[in-house]
Parts: sequence; C-alpha cells; structure tokens
Amino acid sequence: MKESGVARIAVLTVGDELLSGEITDSNFPAIASAVTSLGFVVSEQRTVGDDTERIAGTINDLSRYSDALIITGGLGPTSDDVMRESVSLATGRELELREDLADVIRGFFKSLNRKMTEENMRQAYLPKGGRPIPPAGGTAPGFVLEDEALIFVLPGVPREMQAMLKSDVLPELERVFRGGGVSVTRRIMTFGLGESEVASLVGDLIGKGPVEYAFLALAGPISVKLTASAPTAKEASRLIDEEQEKVQERLRSLIYSTDDRTMEEVVGGLLRESSMTVAVAESCTGGLVCGRITNVPGSSDYFLGGVVSYGIGSKKSILGIPDEALLEGAVSKPVAEALAKAVRQLFRSDLGVGVTGVAGPGSGDESRPVGTVCLGLAHSNGVESFEVLLPGNRSLIRSIASIGALNAVRLHIQGRNRLV
Amino acid sequence: MKESGVARIAVLTVGDELLSGEITDSNFPAIASAVTSLGFVVSEQRTVGDDTERIAGTINDLSRYSDALIITGGLGPTSDDVMRESVSLATGRELELREDLADVIRGFFKSLNRKMTEENMRQAYLPKGGRPIPPAGGTAPGFVLEDEALIFVLPGVPREMQAMLKSDVLPELERVFRGGGVSVTRRIMTFGLGESEVASLVGDLIGKGPVEYAFLALAGPISVKLTASAPTAKEASRLIDEEQEKVQERLRSLIYSTDDRTMEEVVGGLLRESSMTVAVAESCTGGLVCGRITNVPGSSDYFLGGVVSYGIGSKKSILGIPDEALLEGAVSKPVAEALAKAVRQLFRSDLGVGVTGVAGPGSGDESRPVGTVCLGLAHSNGVESFEVLLPGNRSLIRSIASIGALNAVRLHIQGRNRLV
Repeated sequence: MKESGVARIAVLTVGDELLSGEITDSNFPAIASAVTSLGFVVSEQRTVGDDTERIAGTINDLSRYSDALIITGGLGPTSDDVMRESVSLATGRELELREDLADVIRGFFKSLNRKMTEENMRQAYLPKGGRPIPPAGGTAPGFVLEDEALIFVLPGVPREMQAMLKSDVLPELERVFRGGGVSVTRRIMTFGLGESEVASLVGDLIGKGPVEYAFLALAGPISVKLTASAPTAKEASRLIDEEQEKVQERLRSLIYSTDDRTMEEVVGGLLRESSMTVAVAESCTGGLVCGRITNVPGSSDYFLGGVVSYGIGSKKSILGIPDEALLEGAVSKPVAEALAKAVRQLFRSDLGVGVTGVAGPGSGDESRPVGTVCLGLAHSNGVESFEVLLPGNRSLIRSIASIGALNAVRLHIQGRNRLV
Repeated sequence: MKESGVARIAVLTVGDELLSGEITDSNFPAIASAVTSLGFVVSEQRTVGDDTERIAGTINDLSRYSDALIITGGLGPTSDDVMRESVSLATGRELELREDLADVIRGFFKSLNRKMTEENMRQAYLPKGGRPIPPAGGTAPGFVLEDEALIFVLPGVPREMQAMLKSDVLPELERVFRGGGVSVTRRIMTFGLGESEVASLVGDLIGKGPVEYAFLALAGPISVKLTASAPTAKEASRLIDEEQEKVQERLRSLIYSTDDRTMEEVVGGLLRESSMTVAVAESCTGGLVCGRITNVPGSSDYFLGGVVSYGIGSKKSILGIPDEALLEGAVSKPVAEALAKAVRQLFRSDLGVGVTGVAGPGSGDESRPVGTVCLGLAHSNGVESFEVLLPGNRSLIRSIASIGALNAVRLHIQGRNRLV
C-alpha cells in the first residue's frame, strides 16, 4: 500500500450539474460508506466538470496518492460524456472498439424496438486493457483498468453505479487489497441527549484503549462511531464488540441501534416481534411520522394508519378532541394525549401516537415558543405524554419530532420508564 | 481572472466524517448553488480529512487554479480542528491571538454561565492578515484572507456556514469579482414526461442561439436548465427571458416552476390565490403527500388534513370506502376516486386527493405490478382519476407518486384537462 497498511481509496465524481449545485451528489456518500464498511480508508474526494483535460489531470493526481480510484459519471452516449477519452488521455491507452460491448448495446435497442443512433456506439469503446463491467439497467458499461492505481469507472446514474459497486468494485477491492490491515467501524445510534452530553457519558472510555471514538450529530440522533484497526477483520471486530459492551453499560436505553438499522426499522421490528399495531395522529409533523414508519417495506403488518389533523377543526370533528383539551391551544400535553387516545380508538390499534407542536417560523409565543413539541402515547394501560423544546428550523424540528415519536414507541415496548 | 472572464471558485470541505460516508456533505451543494446563482463558476470541489498537511497542500493546489477558495470545517475548539494551522502552513502566515475574538468567545460563555476551557481560546487565533467573520450562533469565527486566491474559511456546521456565506462571502465575491462576465442560469421545472421526451420537445431550440441547455432527471421532475453568459447580468437575463418564452411555448403545462419554487410551494400558492382548501387520503405514499404539503410554512391556511389509510380495514371504517370499490383490491382507479371523495367530505375541503398504489418490493402482480399508482381528485364538479406505472424502487415510487398527487392539484386549479 502507498502510505500505510490499509488500502487508500480516492473517489472522483464528474459532472457540471454537481458543480452548479443543481443536484447533490449521492454517489460519493454511497461509495464512501460501502468502502469504509469493508475496512478501507477513503483518502480524498474530488468533483470536477465535464472537461477532458481537467478529468485526466485529476485522475493522474489522485492515482499518485491512492491504491484505488473510483470514478463516476461521463459514460453516457452523447458528446459531453467524455470519461472514456479522459481516462485514455490520463493513462496513454488508446480507445478501442469492443465488439462484445457493441453487441450488448445493439441487443438493448433491439429488445425495446428502439432505433439506435451512431452516438450510442461511443459506449462500446474502452481504453486498451480495460475490462468491461456489463451495463446495469441502462446502456452504459463501466470498466476496470489496472494502471498506477486500480481504476474503476462507473456510470453517474445512482442505481447503475450502486449495482456495479456491489457486483464488481467491492469484490475486486477485497480480492486485491485484503492482504493489508483492516479497520472495522461500528455506529452506535442514540436518541434523546445532545452530542456533548452523550460524549461526557462515555468520556472515561475515550483514549483508554485501542478503539477510536467519533461523535456525530445527525438531525436528532447522535452517532457514536467506534473504529478499531487490526491485522484481521476478526480481531478488529472482537475489539469493537468489547468496547461496545462498555458503551452500552453507560448509554443504555439511549441506544436504539448498533447494526445500522434506522429508528423506523428498529421500531418496526419491535412491533412485529410483540405482535402489536400502531396508529398515529399528527399535527405539526404533518404526515412525516406516518411517512417514516411506511418507509419500511412490510410496515402494513403493524401500521394501521394515521390522521393528519392540521387544523383545530379536524382535531375536533374527526378525532373528537374535546373542547376542554383545546382550551390552552392546540399545542399542549392534554391535546397530545387526546390525539393519541383518539387515533388508537379510531384505528383499533394497540398503540396510539399523538404529536402536536410549533414547527415555525412564526406562530410561536412566550409560553409555546417555536420548537415546542408535545408527544402522547396511548396504550392498553392508559396514556403518557411529555413536552420538549427542539432546536433548529422548521424542517429540523419536524424531522426530530417525527423520530422522537417513534423513539417513544420503542421505549414503551422495551419497557423503559422514560420516553426520551 | 485566471482562466476566463468569469471568476472561478473552488470549494474545499474538510472532515473525516465526510470521507467515511457517515454524513452527506450539505455544505458544498449550498455553496455551489448560491455561488452559481450569482453568475460565478464553481471550477472544482474537493473533500479531504482532518489532516494539517493534506489540507495545506490542497489549499495551495486549488489556489493555483481559482480566483477564490471557499473552505468549510475544522474551526471547532478541539485539537482535531486543524484548519487554522492548515491555512497558516499553506500561506506561510503565522497564527496570532486576536483580542477582539477572545472577548467575543469569553462573552459567549459568560452569557450562558458556562465554564470556558483553555481549548476554547484556540478559536481566537487567526493567520496574520486574516479578517475575522464574527461567529454565527456558535463560538467559531470564520475568516477571509487575501493570498494567491481570495480564501474564505467557514465553520462546518451548516447553519453557521450558511449565515456567513450570506452575510460575508457572497457580498465580498460580488464586490471583488463583479467586473468580469456574468453567467445567468434558470431552471425550468417540469413534471409528467421523461428526460428524453422533454428534451425532444425542445430539440429544435438547442444549439440555435447563445443559450445553453442541460437536462436533469430529479426523481420525478425533469429540470431544463438554461445558461447564458454576457458582459452584464441584465443582458444575460434578457437572453434567458427570451429563450424561456420559446421553451414555454413547447412545454406548456408540463412546466410547474421557473423560479426555483418546489411543487408544494407552487401548489400552495395556487390554493391560496384561489382561496381553496385541500385534504388528502393516502395509502402507498403513507403520509408523504401530507408531509410534502406541510413542508411549506403557513400551509395550515389551505391544508385541512389527511388520513393515512394503510390497511383495507381503515379504508372501510374511517373513510367509508364501499365494498364494491374494493372488489378489485386496494389499488384501482375506483378506490382512488372513493378515497378522494371520502376525504373531501370528511374534512369538508374544496379538493380531495386520493392515492393508492403498489410501492413494493413484493406484493405486485401481473395486473398491478410494483410501481402501479392510482390518483384520484375530487372537486365541486365531481371526481377524476388516472393510473400510472412509475419506475424505480420503493422510495422513488413513493416520492414520484407524492409529487404527482400535487401536480394533479396544480393542473386542476390551472384549468388544464390533463392530470399529468
């Protein structure tokens, strides 16, 4: 390896539309987390526009610092798709027509009964020595080239990129570089306290052993990332397992996941295991709690449905929230409890969740400032509620509140006393 | 300018957590679109980890190609926040304690009655010649430095970064570089056809004039981006206005926005102007249509609420969908119409929207494959519905369907005949 025992991987994403801010690059984060989870290290990432010389210069530059280079974009059929020419220029390998690829492309158009243009044949050329990766869904083949670094070139379309990453890039990286050291990471996901509070609860562990700590605030959840490096993956995993136990002793019910499952996946699993169903009445989150629950395939097994009662009128007429509860306004613990009870009854679910709050901007006041959120949870033994003051803007407040509502369900099922 | 008449701006985002894929960098897209919308060009973006020498080397490298360099991250108080040292190393300017910054930081801790540590004073140092940008919310000051390029250094926390970008960076860029040429862009947002279909409808315009075209598929909407360069912003805007008129003649009701408003903002505006209200009954989108509408502050003026009827049971019991409608299963145009009518009645809204479909994975069949979505729209003159087959995975299908539901409301209010 060029710098250390762990293979260093650089990533280059190409496209004018990335540099203009028109779209947010989702390919780099996907590549980075896939590569990191295998124990490799991403040393650098760059984005440049659709410019042959600039791409070629960047490829040469990155090849010098890295063991492997993963590139996305510029493999389409039109003349502004210049990746093939750029790699050819960077490596001094001429482009040659690959008959096997030409056949695949002709077949694609024939199967759809569509007319093929001369331009489409551009996709059948590869730099000499390149090994093609077959098209994944579209017509663009990727390719691998062993040069100063091991170079992978993938399409910019995220689904095609991800398919090739999984089918070809990751296995090849493992095959070529697995001799070196391995670093294993684990994310311990928590909800309920801020970053500095979580950090201080495990403060005595940091720097005491071979495992590194990193904390990250993620719009509500706080991630505690453990990283261990060792000669083998097994040894690194053992270090992580031991450290995780110590972290769990300190963070206890704050932890909702140690296996990269989202809050909605964890809560879905708990509901399924306990054969319980849930329904949701939400106001300030306006559908996001339901939307989050139904992100999970198969959620219809435990999610019966919800009511988005955005106005006072619908809180009364559809959910039958009594006037007394609304005396103090729509944001209060009594209203959250009434919403939870009403929706539980309406859908005949085991659990009922009620959310009301002030997402802002505006419409807050001294007693209920923007960020005030009341959560209610109705179950067979009664109803509970609590009030929190969340930080951030409208979108952040809505997002944290929707995760918090699910966290309340998690803690209830796990039999804890506290809701956050 | 180093390469052309338009100022070239490079962006460097710093942080180990970005390279590991743990978080997706939101700072770069925000900077890129702000800078691009002023008519500047982003020439390159890089991400490196928290490593002093690597950051310094990258700063030197980027300074050579660019007129200005915007850097985020590494300005916190702890020892792994190495940006100040890195800029000092890159530019050869020593760090010096700024008493004015020290006072600001001491004041911050005093106002919160919190204890300040020695480490916090690290944030009061700047490379010689640096002009501080006052902290925006946190304790981290940013700074500006005129060196080989004009260097802006901002905190990595998105809210603090954005505040400084707006208050200091953009005005300074305008002041320093506004003498050069200007490129103006406009995004014409469409919904209802695929990228190649939209492109072919305006195909005769492309390459005929001074305005450049770029097409981008954005999980449902297709953006047609027009770019014009001219000596003045006024002249470039005139070119764009003329071209937009031609595009509008061809794309007509496919266009929902030419001013960067989202579909929910456009529909919210239309509902407000026409004093209409809406309610939503959604199944496969599971809350996302309601969630999208309520993204917009003030949406309670026109959004009365919704029902997420995820199971067949709730479709019958809460919305009173008749058994006949459900004969063919839960995904059909009659069910979408019944949902729309029922929710309109339940909430007494002017418009009722019904969404049902197969988001997958699994649970599709030959007559209703995964991606089948039926939308219904109930209004004072009756009810309409249509069925579409959407591409992609569960998350994409749900997202496109939720935008499509709003698009149906848009087209109805705008008095068009077709729903997509």
